Amino acid sequence: MKVSLLTIGNELLSGVTINTNASWLGQELLEHGFPVTESLTIGDDREQILHSLKYLWESSDILFTTGGLGPTSDDITTEVIAEFFGSELVFHEPTFQRLRQRLSSHHIEITEQHKRQSLVPGDADIIANDSGTAPVIHYARDGKHLFCLPGVPFEMKHLVHFQILPLLSEVKGQHYSTRLIRTSGVPESTIAREIADLVEPLPFGSVAYLPHVFGVDVRLIAEATKENEARLHQVTDNITHRLGQVVYTVADEPLAAVVGRELKQRKFTVSTAESCTGGLLADELTNVSGSSDYFTEGFVTYSNRAKMDRLQVPGDLIEQHGAVSEEVAEAMAKGALQTAGTSTALSTTGIAGPTGGTETKPVGLIYIGCAVQDRVTTKRFVFGKDRRLNKERAVYAALNMLRLELQMETRRQL
Amino acid sequence: MKVSLLTIGNELLSGVTINTNASWLGQELLEHGFPVTESLTIGDDREQILHSLKYLWESSDILFTTGGLGPTSDDITTEVIAEFFGSELVFHEPTFQRLRQRLSSHHIEITEQHKRQSLVPGDADIIANDSGTAPVIHYARDGKHLFCLPGVPFEMKHLVHFQILPLLSEVKGQHYSTRLIRTSGVPESTIAREIADLVEPLPFGSVAYLPHVFGVDVRLIAEATKENEARLHQVTDNITHRLGQVVYTVADEPLAAVVGRELKQRKFTVSTAESCTGGLLADELTNVSGSSDYFTEGFVTYSNRAKMDRLQVPGDLIEQHGAVSEEVAEAMAKGALQTAGTSTALSTTGIAGPTGGTETKPVGLIYIGCAVQDRVTTKRFVFGKDRRLNKERAVYAALNMLRLELQMETRRQL
Repeated sequence: MKVSLLTIGNELLSGVTINTNASWLGQELLEHGFPVTESLTIGDDREQILHSLKYLWESSDILFTTGGLGPTSDDITTEVIAEFFGSELVFHEPTFQRLRQRLSSHHIEITEQHKRQSLVPGDADIIANDSGTAPVIHYARDGKHLFCLPGVPFEMKHLVHFQILPLLSEVKGQHYSTRLIRTSGVPESTIAREIADLVEPLPFGSVAYLPHVFGVDVRLIAEATKENEARLHQVTDNITHRLGQVVYTVADEPLAAVVGRELKQRKFTVSTAESCTGGLLADELTNVSGSSDYFTEGFVTYSNRAKMDRLQVPGDLIEQHGAVSEEVAEAMAKGALQTAGTSTALSTTGIAGPTGGTETKPVGLIYIGCAVQDRVTTKRFVFGKDRRLNKERAVYAALNMLRLELQMETRRQL
Repeated sequence: MKVSLLTIGNELLSGVTINTNASWLGQELLEHGFPVTESLTIGDDREQILHSLKYLWESSDILFTTGGLGPTSDDITTEVIAEFFGSELVFHEPTFQRLRQRLSSHHIEITEQHKRQSLVPGDADIIANDSGTAPVIHYARDGKHLFCLPGVPFEMKHLVHFQILPLLSEVKGQHYSTRLIRTSGVPESTIAREIADLVEPLPFGSVAYLPHVFGVDVRLIAEATKENEARLHQVTDNITHRLGQVVYTVADEPLAAVVGRELKQRKFTVSTAESCTGGLLADELTNVSGSSDYFTEGFVTYSNRAKMDRLQVPGDLIEQHGAVSEEVAEAMAKGALQTAGTSTALSTTGIAGPTGGTETKPVGLIYIGCAVQDRVTTKRFVFGKDRRLNKERAVYAALNMLRLELQMETRRQL
């Protein structure tokens, strides 16, 4: 079965807007057993849309388009798709009533332009959009399916989740099941080597290694049968046992959420003392809803003065070892723990770059400190030349360090 | 002229890796006058690559592929492209010598697998890759061009910037010139209405509105002629005059860099006091290289206790008005200014969501405080329901507030 995406919008081609609809759809469809084989992005141009539709419709079993369903004059997807299928556009009363209700509840007067959104191909199915004005147009022809989705991410996601995926599961007998195993701190090649005998070959499905800045994800896919569910379960178990504490979750959740849960379970709190990561560590921790339960405060001590005044890092220590040193990372973590009165603390100090490196302390050198109650550990990393990437890698390394230290602490107490 | 992209890689389709190569190429090529009209993403699959190459090569004048040039067995782009053009693969001595040097400097022994990367189509041009092992394969046929680039972003960018773009400018007579006008704090529809008579129509080129979370970019494009350069200059001038202080830059730089420059020019420093943005404001400020010149420290005061202890926000004030209030935003900014001893300070307090809202204080309600020396101003915003988006919007609103307050301060002193 071939699943394709056609994302439409000039702003996507210019690259200034990143095509998150394509990424989200790719991931969501994969999760639900419909791996995407082709993803095409084009501008709002009649000729181009016709050309691409012809190409993708010929080779796809399921085709999704996003974008170009809005009320303005450059929203031409509906009429071009009708043209492609030789359909007449007709006025769709239920869509118009929905539109009218929606606009009046927002105190917006209905205009001729709005009415355009109630014109739909007469021979297509129309799927109501609960979170916006443009309905989904659905063509089912010769066992193939075309779904035209709005480009607004919130509306698109809602529709796919609650309307399209249930419909697809019904329509298509075959369904896939997936498993996710997330790891941190070890490169892709090591993960692949470690578990090679467990997954290569995987006679009933396939395995994918997905390296990210936050770690390597291992994803298993198989046709959804009762037998395969048991096999996937077994292989996932085998992999997590083999990889041990390198695995931080088998759910679709970020490392910061896992760390947060570990803290909460122990009734621990955390504070941060950041130099080179400049607030990104606190940001990542607070991206988790409910993080105020364990994250009380963070110090972004960029200047040496701030390290001394806020975290009681001795001026001598900075002078002797430099602000980028194991000693200062340790003192910062201790200082945060004491000042904030938390049970754990993380610190970062390093040279994010692209300038500021020396022969002995190159760009990318970063020390991380991790305090769990009275025990402080530090780690030295040498990342790359890219400022942003260095910040990100330091943040994930710090979170992973806290995760492992918490586990070790628990083992020590047993 | 039609420019197309073919990005190759299973990890891109699964959506877990966001296709930043396509975004970066789209933007970079547009900047250099080669707007992309089609961008296709496919997996590492021979049939699929052949099928897509046929489709894109027919309709494109310039085609770029990325990915699949590495040394492992799933890197098949080179051989499939040779198959497509009916070329023989030949051993390329200069590429092999480069590869050997590169590997030996990294103390890696050369294997048969590595040697595969020295096999290239005999009838293509080979462009040396200074930052990696895979060279660029360049076909020039019937006035058309195909460039096969490596998928590693760092290598790809370096090659495009220093090798491909200069080559393209030479090859193609026509060249485009662009202008960027970045605005903050005003919606796209307002910007479009305000400058409609200046740019619609633009008889010598085109205009694009690009809405981002950080503001709306206006981009002008025209064929690069001496006459058009003068016209673009004039229109850019007209737009910036019309929009006034809504425009923060006409260069390709983020708002935080502009704010940083304004601070530096005045020999000012800045500190931050963040609640709902949780460190993201400090993170954004410190993404700018050299920000340590003016950013000294940040406080992420998530708990009320931290607001009181670190920023001297009176407990009574929090009790009376709530932590999410104009009064607390003001006290936080003042507290940061005094504690950190900076000349300016920014504060944020709000309900990022998705939970925690009440009838009077809904999710998305955010107060921002801005202190410039002894003058503190606050602003109230109501954003949306998305936690991350609320953090981002608050950060850009805060930076824009500081930018405008600095300008106002300067005008007051004149």
